[in-house]
Amino acid sequence: MSGDHVTTILEANRAYVDAFDRGALEIAPARPLLVLTCIDARLDPGAFLGLEIGDAHVLRNAGGRVTDDVVRSAVISSWLLGTREFLVIHHTDCGMTKFTNDVLQGMIRDAIGVDVSDEDFLPFSDVEQSVRDDVARLRDTKTFPEDVRVTGFVYDVRTGEIAEVA
Amino acid sequence: MSGDHVTTILEANRAYVDAFDRGALEIAPARPLLVLTCIDARLDPGAFLGLEIGDAHVLRNAGGRVTDDVVRSAVISSWLLGTREFLVIHHTDCGMTKFTNDVLQGMIRDAIGVDVSDEDFLPFSDVEQSVRDDVARLRDTKTFPEDVRVTGFVYDVRTGEIAEVA
Repeated sequence: MSGDHVTTILEANRAYVDAFDRGALEIAPARPLLVLTCIDARLDPGAFLGLEIGDAHVLRNAGGRVTDDVVRSAVISSWLLGTREFLVIHHTDCGMTKFTNDVLQGMIRDAIGVDVSDEDFLPFSDVEQSVRDDVARLRDTKTFPEDVRVTGFVYDVRTGEIAEVA
Repeated sequence: MSGDHVTTILEANRAYVDAFDRGALEIAPARPLLVLTCIDARLDPGAFLGLEIGDAHVLRNAGGRVTDDVVRSAVISSWLLGTREFLVIHHTDCGMTKFTNDVLQGMIRDAIGVDVSDEDFLPFSDVEQSVRDDVARLRDTKTFPEDVRVTGFVYDVRTGEIAEVA
């Protein structure tokens, strides 16, 4: 009953609107932060980083991987809205460590007959290494302002702790 | 003093860890929801959609645009972790409506001499149309489970309200 999920969302939103008492916030983040992390449902980056609404850009994809689309977003964020501190945060028990391209490609082919054998879904096996790789890719990107800094972390879903690894 | 921002984050995280009392959550979202929205600092999608930690995948990029990387993430989310209801949420006063590719390309060329004239940063001028376009692109994608549903909304940053537009 997928429609019920949208109904639930809309009801929750009405309560949010009724309680909404925020003054006008600036479009630019109050802190010059861009956080890249995973879509995982267990992560609340605003909470585990102590961010208030309006503080930081939050960019999320499967794994928190650095892709062309992440670079696109980070260019806009930095040049147009002033972010200079990029944080890459992958996490323990990530879904990206639990499959391979072959497995996912086979699942889709078997279920609906669609060939995605040329797609790289960017799985990884070592979460610290994936952070180091993605931090390196951002540091090597030549299209950001020269004073951008990149730092990499692993978030532990059992404890809520972030550990700096790059 | 960019290092100070990381120090502030780490201090906030220590407080989060001290208060962390969550039981083990499942890796799959408790509700079969995938939310795609913008990186904008003023958006707290968990709050304005009434989501609890563990409920939904949250995917964010500049504009909340549907890109190849979003399709990659949505394939993983749906096939491997069971999401079936995709919500595309763009918002009023979005930074993506305030520049053109020419302007951003010129800014980067003038500042650091890098040519990004072949890059499309996916700006838009009409937020309802951008939602309709991106919902259509997801609906036309052939690599998702056949029972995936896609709904599109605009979030109003002045009121906190979401309005369904596609």
